[in-house]
Formats: sequence, structure tokens, C-alpha cells
Amino acid sequence: MAAYDFEGHITDIPDYPEKGVVFKDITTLLKEPEGFHAAIDAIADHFKDAGVTKVVGAEARGFLIGAPVAYRLGAGFVPARKPGKLPREVRTESYELEYGTDELQIHVDALDEDDVVLIIDDLVATGGTAVAQAKLVSQYGCKLAGMGFLMELEFLHPREAIAKETDVDVFALVQVK
Amino acid sequence: MAAYDFEGHITDIPDYPEKGVVFKDITTLLKEPEGFHAAIDAIADHFKDAGVTKVVGAEARGFLIGAPVAYRLGAGFVPARKPGKLPREVRTESYELEYGTDELQIHVDALDEDDVVLIIDDLVATGGTAVAQAKLVSQYGCKLAGMGFLMELEFLHPREAIAKETDVDVFALVQVK
Repeated sequence: MAAYDFEGHITDIPDYPEKGVVFKDITTLLKEPEGFHAAIDAIADHFKDAGVTKVVGAEARGFLIGAPVAYRLGAGFVPARKPGKLPREVRTESYELEYGTDELQIHVDALDEDDVVLIIDDLVATGGTAVAQAKLVSQYGCKLAGMGFLMELEFLHPREAIAKETDVDVFALVQVK
Repeated sequence: MAAYDFEGHITDIPDYPEKGVVFKDITTLLKEPEGFHAAIDAIADHFKDAGVTKVVGAEARGFLIGAPVAYRLGAGFVPARKPGKLPREVRTESYELEYGTDELQIHVDALDEDDVVLIIDDLVATGGTAVAQAKLVSQYGCKLAGMGFLMELEFLHPREAIAKETDVDVFALVQVK
């Protein structure tokens, strides 16, 4: 089977959302039946022997990759959401943005210490959101099996930021130099 | 195989987000590996012979169900998003809320007239979002194969609202009387 050209189906949007930034639009990959299916399979297959019981994904684009990866692995899915979106008691982790801070929350009963967790997102850039999710998961005392991404912006060195927090397996399907 | 108790894994939150409303929290179902997998299979299986090429789902909770259903059906996934979230040219549809209006958008190149589209969401209540998505899909001249929901609030009569717009197959896994 020829390798699917994932990178060729991701669209660069120059100067979006602000000048000097090249936005990576994954919708042109997700809409392709073959590409979407192959991307989910490749990410899930990397972690198929990790014993994953729950996938955690951050809103909103993390849901697009995380939910089907959870389905494929036979795991449950736990949404990490912005403040005010989850209706019951939550645990919270803050993370730094270029200007200011933001927070991610998951329900207090979403994970327990027997869980083996995989963090999935569409994109890892500076690694800030991934590290916040790893810290959030660590609040529950469960095992973090790894982190999987559709795309990694290598030039922002996310693996170095993640390695300061955890030594888990980090996998990215597409690496942007 | 005994039927999975989907409804028993959905949590009622009284007076959320406002007094008199009972919020249906699906996160307690999604986190269960067996329940999540069975729910996606049941929705996807209902449409398995419909020739679906693309699933459309609205942010953010529609992604949680729509993306894995698309994966299961071997279809692509097209996100319907709030204004300002998609980076390229879009088509837009407005819909009425209790107070005021809101809009959903999808990329102008997300669908073409050969597509067979399935609209998937976590919940159908008044049917407003579902009808807006049906109108949005109709802008592309493609076929709408159906609408699938994890949960239907029957007491708000969404099927009547949808039937005014389209006669497609409407399926809900859990019906709340």
C-alpha cells in the first residue's frame, strides 16, 4: 500500500490568524475519506499495545482526532474543555499563552487511578496545551501512556517542552520542519 | 449480547445552564469504553447502507460523535463551526436561538454535488441546529442521506421542525420523552 500523502492534504494559510503565522488547516485532510481513515489508523496503531483505557482530547479540534482514535483503540473518550463548558465538578490546569493564561478542565470523575491515558490533539506547537493536559491527568494518579498528534511544528521544539514535564512516548504523524 | 444501557450512563444536571432546564451530560457515557464504542456502532450501523461520503458535525459536541461515526463509515468528516473559526472562504446559515440568532459555517470546498452527507450531533432538542445544517448542506447541491443523534428530546418535537425542511431519515439512539 502506497503511503498516503498526509502533508499534501493539509492547507497552509499564510498570515492567519495574524501576520507572520502560517495556519495549518487540517479540514482538507479530514474531509477525504481515505486520508481521514488512514490518519486515525496510523495514530491509533502507534499506541495499540499501550493498554489505553481513556483518550483525553482538548476542545475543539482535539475532539476531531481524539474521539475516533479512542473509538479505534476501544477506549473511552474524555473531553478537556475551556472553563465554564463542563456542567459538573472539575479539575483545572492553567497554561501560558503568548499573552496571558488559559485553562483546561476535565470532570473530577472522568479518570481514576487504574486508567491508562493517551493524550491526543490535532497539533502540537509550543507544547503548552499538551503539558497542561499531562499535568491535569497526573492529578488523578493514573498512568499516562503517551501523546499523539496529527501534526508537530518541530521548529517550535514541543518535544523539549514536553520532556521537561514527562518522558512519555510522543508520536506525530506529520512533522513540519 | 445484552443491550447497553445508554440512557443510564447519561447524567441529568438539573437547573443547568439555567433554572428549569435539565442538562443532559453525555461525558459519563463517552468515558466508558464499551458504551462509547457501542453508541458509535449503533448510530453508524443505522446508516451503513446509505452510501455516506461525508459526515457533517457541529462544534464542539457534534465532533465527539460525528468524527468517530465518519471513521466507522469510512467517510470524511466536515466540521460545521461558529463564525470566525474556519480560516478560508465559507458558506453560512443562520438559525434562531431563544434570544437572537447564531450562525454555522463550513468551508466552501468542503462538499461537492457528488457527496452523500450524513448530519451527526450529540443532541437534537428543538431541531434548530439540525435544520441549519441541512440548509447549509443543500447550498452545495449534494444529497442529504440522513441525520443521526445520540439523544433526542422528544418533548421538544424536533422531528416536526426537521420535517418542515427535509424528509430525510432521522435516527436517535436515546429518546427522552
